[in-house]
Amino acid sequence: MNGAESLLRTLVANGIDVCFMNPGTSEMQFVAALDRVPQMRGVLCLHETVCAGAADGYARMTGRPAATLLHLGPGLANGLSNFHNARKARSPVVNIVGEHSTAHLRYDAPLTADVAAFAHPVSGWVRTLDQAENIGAAAVEAVREARRPPGQVASLIIPADHSWSEAGEPASAAADEPRARPAEANLRAVAAVVASGERAAFFLGGSAASRAGIEAAARTGLPVFLNRYSGRVPRGRDWAFARRVAYFPEPAEAMLQGLQHLILVEAEAPVSFFGYPGRPSTLAPSLCRLHVLASHHEDGVAALESLGGKSVLPAPAPSTAMPPDGALTPESLGAVLAALLPADAIISDEMISSGEPVNSALAGAAFHDLLPVTGGSIGQGLPVAVGAALACPQRKVVALEADGSAMYSLQALWTMAREKLDVVTVIFANRRYRILEVEMKRTGAGPIGPKADQMIDLSRPVVDWVSLARGLGVEAARATTVAEFATLLTRALATKGPRLIEAQL
Amino acid sequence: MNGAESLLRTLVANGIDVCFMNPGTSEMQFVAALDRVPQMRGVLCLHETVCAGAADGYARMTGRPAATLLHLGPGLANGLSNFHNARKARSPVVNIVGEHSTAHLRYDAPLTADVAAFAHPVSGWVRTLDQAENIGAAAVEAVREARRPPGQVASLIIPADHSWSEAGEPASAAADEPRARPAEANLRAVAAVVASGERAAFFLGGSAASRAGIEAAARTGLPVFLNRYSGRVPRGRDWAFARRVAYFPEPAEAMLQGLQHLILVEAEAPVSFFGYPGRPSTLAPSLCRLHVLASHHEDGVAALESLGGKSVLPAPAPSTAMPPDGALTPESLGAVLAALLPADAIISDEMISSGEPVNSALAGAAFHDLLPVTGGSIGQGLPVAVGAALACPQRKVVALEADGSAMYSLQALWTMAREKLDVVTVIFANRRYRILEVEMKRTGAGPIGPKADQMIDLSRPVVDWVSLARGLGVEAARATTVAEFATLLTRALATKGPRLIEAQL
Repeated sequence: MNGAESLLRTLVANGIDVCFMNPGTSEMQFVAALDRVPQMRGVLCLHETVCAGAADGYARMTGRPAATLLHLGPGLANGLSNFHNARKARSPVVNIVGEHSTAHLRYDAPLTADVAAFAHPVSGWVRTLDQAENIGAAAVEAVREARRPPGQVASLIIPADHSWSEAGEPASAAADEPRARPAEANLRAVAAVVASGERAAFFLGGSAASRAGIEAAARTGLPVFLNRYSGRVPRGRDWAFARRVAYFPEPAEAMLQGLQHLILVEAEAPVSFFGYPGRPSTLAPSLCRLHVLASHHEDGVAALESLGGKSVLPAPAPSTAMPPDGALTPESLGAVLAALLPADAIISDEMISSGEPVNSALAGAAFHDLLPVTGGSIGQGLPVAVGAALACPQRKVVALEADGSAMYSLQALWTMAREKLDVVTVIFANRRYRILEVEMKRTGAGPIGPKADQMIDLSRPVVDWVSLARGLGVEAARATTVAEFATLLTRALATKGPRLIEAQL
Repeated sequence: MNGAESLLRTLVANGIDVCFMNPGTSEMQFVAALDRVPQMRGVLCLHETVCAGAADGYARMTGRPAATLLHLGPGLANGLSNFHNARKARSPVVNIVGEHSTAHLRYDAPLTADVAAFAHPVSGWVRTLDQAENIGAAAVEAVREARRPPGQVASLIIPADHSWSEAGEPASAAADEPRARPAEANLRAVAAVVASGERAAFFLGGSAASRAGIEAAARTGLPVFLNRYSGRVPRGRDWAFARRVAYFPEPAEAMLQGLQHLILVEAEAPVSFFGYPGRPSTLAPSLCRLHVLASHHEDGVAALESLGGKSVLPAPAPSTAMPPDGALTPESLGAVLAALLPADAIISDEMISSGEPVNSALAGAAFHDLLPVTGGSIGQGLPVAVGAALACPQRKVVALEADGSAMYSLQALWTMAREKLDVVTVIFANRRYRILEVEMKRTGAGPIGPKADQMIDLSRPVVDWVSLARGLGVEAARATTVAEFATLLTRALATKGPRLIEAQL
């Protein structure tokens, strides 16, 4: 069989059966091979940023890599910003990038670029295939590297002639490398902190920011904080005690104030998103001692469970009540969402400036998985929702999107329609890069003059999200009041398939 | 003054007065400084691929760089595919990328990435600013490097603290480096070829693929071929004799068949876009001798003019007649476009599979500048049209777009509406990645099965370009017949401002 078929069969043998793709000429053999490898599902995305973000979302929900198939250097380049987010989420992704045939490469044809150089900043592993017969072995290595704890983007670059040449049989499955057990010295040191009675708290990220990890941490009786940039965290009334550290440094510092010890589990010490003039970047008190219980690649849950403890889990938060009718604000939108969200939903959150009030309200909602911003590159939310919906077809996915961010990857709506994905998208249409207004002041840049305002304003012309969604095949409607939003959301949650609601703020 | 203002003033002093931007927190000082530097025009783009492509289009029409202002590594990453096209076009661009403040960088905050690594593959010059006081000098160097013949992307990375710190006065203007005169030996060798009477032709690219270059080449009496991937070429009835070498290797080889000499002027020897099994990549006959008259950075026009010659320019091509009413095809669309195109228009061409028939028809149109695909990364056409329209507000810009490619950077439509740019966009809506059907056969990938077809098909769901354009503030309508298209095009050409026509094939 040719290289392309050998690669697809090797991926399938390694449990990878979804490939988000936007192929070109150099990847045509892979496309043709789809019909010979029925177990592999090809999902067409109309821009590579959707492929990369969808693979990230898929990995966050399954813990397993999906594949991406991209066209040469420029196709990869288009996916880089969402691969950046996947890298920060530590999501496993097997990223296949086509390359010109080896004979053609030396001629510097228009599409020729340094593919490996594009791949390196976002990948934990990069390899350019040297010959067709090695394609199966290279695919196994890519899968193993993608899955290597805590997970990473593994980029395999395949010259076109290796996919159209005879390549022999596919390779068999790779053995998974388990998460390492943390050092005993770490466990003992943290146990001593827990027993000391001094003011200590946990800071959980990665696989430790999970139900099992949070429960184990809480049983020690210490407060539990979550890295707000973890790939996936459980949330809802029962989990409200585990708080994500705030975005801005002042409230974040207030949350951590007075702590003598912060115990890091699959997380670095918390830092602010941006640096500001005259402000430290770190958020924990300056005298707070940091303790590493488990590094990113180690088994933080097992380490937490080994600490024992018998504390009762904190009481659930009160349910959020439906707000009265009135104007749409982030607060009222959050309350409606919290009241109506079904149990076991998945929320992809890219609300940016609207995020704090909505997320506060959602702490009182039914249990859901939250897929937060990880790398801060906007355009993550809709593609991550695509991947999450593919991964969990029985669960409702709700994508909460700032209008400015949604514009970065609106092509994802088309894939939602094509694949009939069960995603409700809510656009927080404040018609402004509102966060920049805030940041303008914080960075001391001074007042916003009329020219500066033009770089922040999205209202001239107004973006009509209902029109955009319909143009991409997704049913859509606009809400201007709380009652309208509640009606539209109720209907969307009760129906399978993609819907979009533009919430006009 | 702070670093941001010093940088803007230095750019203005160096003739750069347009900046395509999508700023974030680390670039807020630049945004604020816009109101203190009235000569600098900020143009907001809703995705960085629009910034990069617009700067490319601006440079192609003016020969001067515009600036881009992008947000950290991920913002730059989003622009890379159109910077790739700018690199292949050899367009000068001064690319300013914000970076975290130096104190914050070490903390690996979410948005932290290797900005310089992202920049290198598309840039001829990359520098990370070391201190605020050097910002003016660094900006001068960036401008000089961007303009260095034949032109390149110069990327200047600026940590946020250097833009908010005191930086002193702006630097003054840089002296331009002129294009070098080609070696006398080259001129003599080519003069001998011209005089030999053997079958020889010119292959012009870069600044030589211009009116002056083509006229000078034609006066020698030799045939003139153009690099189809040049950034800008003149076209129309009077220039039809200068033919762009075809996309596919077979017709390209047929054009060059029998040549004993090919004289390269600011161009490499022509190669096919992709490599195919069992086919050479080069297009000139194997025994054809290649002669370099001028390299990319040399003055090809002066070299051509030095050859002398008195041949009369070939006769103009016949005008293209309006076709009868009927179904829309690339052929009938091309004929309507050729018949109605006003003199001195600018065409941004990203028609992909519809390109050959339309471009053949346009060879019989009134004079226009053609901005072709250069690097082959799709999503170029609409952003390049934005930049061209900004650069030449008195000229009509016509963006001819494949539907698949337009989807890559549809955010450009919003900037057209915001800036009231005089651009008519025609979407060639065949609802398919049609080119891949052709390439599927050429690469020997075999028949297109049902799963493969799903990766090529854009009709489930249908993309409604009228709805998309209206959603982004651009007036739009759909044409399904030749008469409808002619009516809509006539109206759009007669009106100032952005319009979109979806031509349903």
